[in-house]
Formats: sequence, C-alpha cells, structure tokens
Amino acid sequence: MTTIDREHCIRLDQQDPLRPLRDQFALPQGVIYLDGNSLGARPRAAAARAAQVVAEEWGDGLIRSWNTAGWFDLPQRLGNKLAPLVGAGHDEVVVTDTTSINLFKVLAAALRVQQTRDPARKVIVSEASNFPTDLYIAQGLADLLQQGYSLRLVNSPAEIDTAVGADTAVLMLTHVNYKTGEMLDMAGLTELAHARGALTVWDLCHSAGAVPVDLKAAGADYAIGCTYKYLNGGPGSPAFVWVAPALRDAFWQPLSGWWGHAAPFAMDPQYRPVEGVRRFLCGTQPVTSLAMVECGLDIFAQTSMQVLRAKSLLLTDLFIDLVEARCGHHPLTLVTPREHARRGSQVSLEHPEGYAVVQALIERGVIGDYREPRIARFGFTPLYTSFAEVWDAVEILRDVLDSGAYRDARFQTRGQVT
Amino acid sequence: MTTIDREHCIRLDQQDPLRPLRDQFALPQGVIYLDGNSLGARPRAAAARAAQVVAEEWGDGLIRSWNTAGWFDLPQRLGNKLAPLVGAGHDEVVVTDTTSINLFKVLAAALRVQQTRDPARKVIVSEASNFPTDLYIAQGLADLLQQGYSLRLVNSPAEIDTAVGADTAVLMLTHVNYKTGEMLDMAGLTELAHARGALTVWDLCHSAGAVPVDLKAAGADYAIGCTYKYLNGGPGSPAFVWVAPALRDAFWQPLSGWWGHAAPFAMDPQYRPVEGVRRFLCGTQPVTSLAMVECGLDIFAQTSMQVLRAKSLLLTDLFIDLVEARCGHHPLTLVTPREHARRGSQVSLEHPEGYAVVQALIERGVIGDYREPRIARFGFTPLYTSFAEVWDAVEILRDVLDSGAYRDARFQTRGQVT
Repeated sequence: MTTIDREHCIRLDQQDPLRPLRDQFALPQGVIYLDGNSLGARPRAAAARAAQVVAEEWGDGLIRSWNTAGWFDLPQRLGNKLAPLVGAGHDEVVVTDTTSINLFKVLAAALRVQQTRDPARKVIVSEASNFPTDLYIAQGLADLLQQGYSLRLVNSPAEIDTAVGADTAVLMLTHVNYKTGEMLDMAGLTELAHARGALTVWDLCHSAGAVPVDLKAAGADYAIGCTYKYLNGGPGSPAFVWVAPALRDAFWQPLSGWWGHAAPFAMDPQYRPVEGVRRFLCGTQPVTSLAMVECGLDIFAQTSMQVLRAKSLLLTDLFIDLVEARCGHHPLTLVTPREHARRGSQVSLEHPEGYAVVQALIERGVIGDYREPRIARFGFTPLYTSFAEVWDAVEILRDVLDSGAYRDARFQTRGQVT
Repeated sequence: MTTIDREHCIRLDQQDPLRPLRDQFALPQGVIYLDGNSLGARPRAAAARAAQVVAEEWGDGLIRSWNTAGWFDLPQRLGNKLAPLVGAGHDEVVVTDTTSINLFKVLAAALRVQQTRDPARKVIVSEASNFPTDLYIAQGLADLLQQGYSLRLVNSPAEIDTAVGADTAVLMLTHVNYKTGEMLDMAGLTELAHARGALTVWDLCHSAGAVPVDLKAAGADYAIGCTYKYLNGGPGSPAFVWVAPALRDAFWQPLSGWWGHAAPFAMDPQYRPVEGVRRFLCGTQPVTSLAMVECGLDIFAQTSMQVLRAKSLLLTDLFIDLVEARCGHHPLTLVTPREHARRGSQVSLEHPEGYAVVQALIERGVIGDYREPRIARFGFTPLYTSFAEVWDAVEILRDVLDSGAYRDARFQTRGQVT
C-alpha cells in the first residue's frame, strides 16, 4: 500500500489498453465523474447521431424514414449489438420501453408459464434491497392478477435458499445491487431456482457493460436491464429485454401492442404475435433517444467485457485501498464486498454524514451519488475512468473529511438525488 | 367550384392568419407533406433543443441535470402545456411512455373501478375499425386477467348503442378514426355510456392538435394519445394520459414503477402512489425524445384550436372539392364524412389501385400514405399546410391518374408502409 502515489496511478493509465477509448467520450472539464452507474457519460458520437436523426431523418425524411432510415428495425438491430455483452444470442434481445415496463412483460410471461406447469406456484421471491421499481412492478402485477399472487422479500441473499420453495413461481433478482454493489452468483442461484421448480428473472441494470454476464451459460430464463448507466445510451434511453430461446416460442406477454404483431400493417383486429424476439415490442418507440444507444454500444464493440472487467477490478481495488490508507481515520465503512466474485463495478461507503459528504464532493467536482441510508456510491466505468482520477477523488474525499467541509449547512439540506 | 384556381388558393394563403407559423417548421424542398397525421413535421426549434439536451444537459450536466435541467418534471410540465389542447386542466395530464402502454394503464384502472362498482361488468366495447394496437392492448389485458373479461367489437358507430349494456365495463373509442378520418361525437357517446353504467376511454391520437377536444365538457373518464402526429413531437415521441379529476383520487394502475411513487428516492420497498397525475408515471423516461415535444407545443401556444379548426375545414373542403372537380372521372370514392361535425383533419380516398397511387404520388413529392384496403390517406395540418399545396397536390394526383403512371410495376410491390 505504501508504494502507491499519484505517479504510480499515472503509470497505470499509461499502461491501460482502454486508454484510447476515453477520448471517445465528451467529459466536462473539472469533473471526476464517478456516477456512470446512474447516468453514463456521453459518447462524442451521440451529438452527431442525434442531429442526424432530428435534422435529416425526421426533418427531411419525414415519414419515409421509418423504412429508409431503419427506424423500425432499431430495437432489434441495437439488441443484436447489445446481446454479446450479456451472453445472449443473435435476435434474442430488443431495446425498447423502460426497465419497469419490460420487467412487467417478463414477470407476466413467467407467471403464465408457471400457470401451465404448476398453477399452485404464485409467489415471486426477491430481495427487500432490490431496486424499488422492481418490487413495485411485481406488486402491481400481483395486485392486478388478484388470484393469490404475492411477493416474498428476503433480507439478504443468504435467505434465498429457504425462501424459494414449492410455492415459488419466480425468483426475481438484480444481479448487482444498486446500493451495495454486491454481485450475486447468477449461475448458482438460477440452478437453485430451477432445482425447486422456479423460473428466474434477472435485472441487469448495474451489470450490462459493467461486469461480464453470460445469461445462457447461467441457464437464466428472462433478463431485463437499462442502457443509460454503464452502456452510456443517454438520459432515460430505452431498456432491453431477453428471454431464453427455450421459452421464447411459448412466450406470451400482456403488453401486446402493434409492434409485436406478426403483420403490423395488415391492421388485423386480432393480435397475433410475431415469431421471435419482436414479440417483446409494444408501441412506437422514441426514435431519437433510441438511436443514440448505438453510440455507446459501438464503443463496447472495440473491446471486450474481459478487458473491461480486469480494469474495473483494478479501479475498485485501488479506490478501496486508497480510502483505507488515506481516509482510514474517518468513520467510513466499506459496504461493497471485497471479494472480486461478489463485486460489481461500484464501491459504496457508509458514513454517518453520507449525504453531506457526497454534496461536498460534488461541489469540488467529484460526482458520486447518495443512497439512503448514509451510503456514498462511487461508480467506476473502465471505458473512461482513469487511475489518476481515482487518486484525485480519494485526495478530495480526504480533504473534505479532514477539513470538516461537509459539515457546512448548505450540504445538509436534502434535495432530490438521483 | 369552377372559380377555384391556383391564384385563388394563393390568395387564401395570403389571408391565412396561421401563415407565419409555417416558417417555424423545417419542411424539405420539393415535398408537399400530407402525412402529418402519421408523423408531424419538424419544428425548427427541435434541432437546437435536441442539441442542448445532448451536449449541455447530458454531456456537461451529466447526472446533475435530473434536477438542474428539470428532467424529472418534464412529463408534468409538458402535460400542462398539452392540457389546454384537449380540454384538460392544470396538473391533469402527463407526457410519458407510449400510447399502447398508457392505454393499458387506463383500461386496467377503469376495470378496477368497475370491479368495485359492479363486478359483473367485464366487457370492453370498441370498434373493429379502431386502430389495431388499441384492440391488441385490450385483448392482452383481458387475457392477463382471465376472469371472464372480453372485448366486444362493433362494425360501425351506429352499433354502439346496442352493444353497450349492463355487462359493459368500458366503452373504448378512438375519437377520430385513423383510416376513415371520421370523428365521433365524444359528448354524446360518453353520455350514452354513462347512462348504461359504463366508463369511457378516448384515444386522441388523431385528435390532439387536429380538432378541438373538450374532455371535461364531454364528461369523459380517461384519455390517451400520441404527440408525434399533429402535435409534431418527433418520431415516436412519448404519449400522454389523462384521467377525470373525479376518478383520479381512486385511481390505481398496475404499471406501478418508481416514478409514480410518493417518495421515489426514499427507496421504500412498498409501492405508495403519489397523489395526483404523476401516479400515471412508471419508469425512467427517454429525455431527449421527451424534451423535443415542447417545441411543437410551443407553436400551438401561439394560436388556438378554434383558428386551427377553421383552417383545417377549409383545407379538407378544398381538397374534397378539387378532387371531385378535377379527378371525378377516376374511380375515387370519398371515405371521409362530408359533414364537418364528423370529420377530423384528414381526407381518405378509396381507389382500386390505392397502394400504387400513393407510391406514385410519393415519387412526385406528394407524401400521403396508404392503409389497407385500398385507402389513400391525406392529412392536413393547418399549422403548416398551405392552400396552394392542396391545389398542387390535386393537380399531381390528377396527372398520376390521367397518365396511368401509377400502373408502373415499381409502384405495385408492397413494402412496409407506416
């Protein structure tokens, strides 16, 4: 530990094979951005792509662009670019709607499969610490169905083993926890669920583009996730959805809009789902926001999740080591697991004044974010985070803590935090 | 009729109070755009707004823009700008998700209300000629609920009277038919439905920004619609949703994502809907596509739906008159009602070779579109369509028909048509 200094970090950057990719992002001056786990930074190409969609495709092409600019095919074409990042195959993923909406689709689909296999299975098992919208969507669906469906929440991953039983329809988990950064064992938990007769739904919001994911090797059944965090798709860019090929032919989902119809322009009054992955589609998609997703995916195509993971672990290890070495005299508790196999690409630290510490850091240009209770989150995105930035962020954190700057009244007022 | 010539049309344009607004749209050279009922033209301001969202708000502001750029408030702020166009009040509308998704929300909400009022009401009545996605969504919801819910389709508006009865939960209608351009009597049909104990859901996709709509005066219960047609929000821009204030406090909807929670950042594992209109929200919205909706709404704020309606009727009257006067020797049948009270802002013509005629027109720069079977649709958008364009479009139609140009083989092949 004692040998690490800023020069060492600069040398790590010089040796970093991903260093050229940072130049493909437009990062503002004076900011160390450690919140790519909430909203990814902007690929430089996104500005030109948006301008092209708005000025040329919409403005000049008008209605013709649905065909000539390939707007109709965007969900599937982008899905095919995203698929390798999560271990999915060609024509198995579409980019569409929101994570919440896609979760509703796959949860309803999974419950329908169980209804034919074993109608007594009416429980969705999840973690109380799952991202809330996942729980809300499960609650909304159970409330809508009104046939004894319910949500069972466990307080830690260790409780999953006893919570999944003969009454369980679906084990619904987020692969990397948004708050703690803890990564679950996707293959192991999927095997556990299957052994008990349950299906699995995996939320990859904090995994896609952050850690290697192999849905097919894990034997997963359904997955959803967002594109605006590690995938750098832009604010609120549409989400993605995947179903295992074995389930796809029997796949039914209730948000049966015209984009999922076998012949959308035949104007048939009867819904007849298209074969394959487009069955996940519902209504007309927000083209400008959707098109920009490609700019982020095109950067991923220049590297591999293995290379990214190697750097991600170096970054998070470095951050943890430096915080412990240089801020160890402050009441900071590491929330994120130390074990690599259980760590995503973020580090969460608990501090009694976590909210104020995060605000003070933001004022000094170190952008992380805050999550209840008392947790400061720092996301490390190997495509653009440098080792020198990790050093500088920890030095600024140390100064904020040593100086007591975070105690200033203006950092105490709770505003809306994303 | 005999006195109408191109000079007359040019004089109408000179007298048109809406003429200055056309300059606020970026219309391509060499095109007469009569498809604003499918995808509205681009407000010039949209390019700068998109660039601002992408470069400044996303690129420089990064995560901070959720608050500093007002991204969180966009659905409600845009809803308030849209509300006056459809006779809704302040804080009664949000712009979010897609028309299909919003329809699912309000249909589920309406069925839930009926479940408490009169559980025997399990039929959704609609028209077989309704836009298919509306029917598909109703089918998907009925299939999901599996408790005897069903969809009953009538073949003409005249059949609605007998179709709505003691078993009817919801009368679900599109105010202006996408294919025929026929406008229904919203107040009369709502009164009919209420007299029989049914609730109403109105799809305003071809009404919002096209014709005056007064949801509250009509006593309507729920409404949804899109922003990318007459409202010029951009390709696939998010849709809107409204519920009558009397129903709003009891309003429940199953797509209960975190954006509809009373305290979205408290990370409460239990869904607790916010009071008021934000209860319609579900997941994170596509900000770039959403933000551009404002550019179209800002143009509407410079005029009124009454002024727009007056010009719309002049345009469609002129088109019908000219087609009959100058193309009357061809097998064209007027599908759209002649009566003003039953006409939206489009004119549909049936021709035995309707598909090929539309393709031949598009090649000559007159962009309308085709709908099965044999229908050529022409949308008239008073914000930017000129009277001289109506004259020129009819002359080109006459030439296409007189010359038989549409019989060319290249116009016969069916491609994807939006």
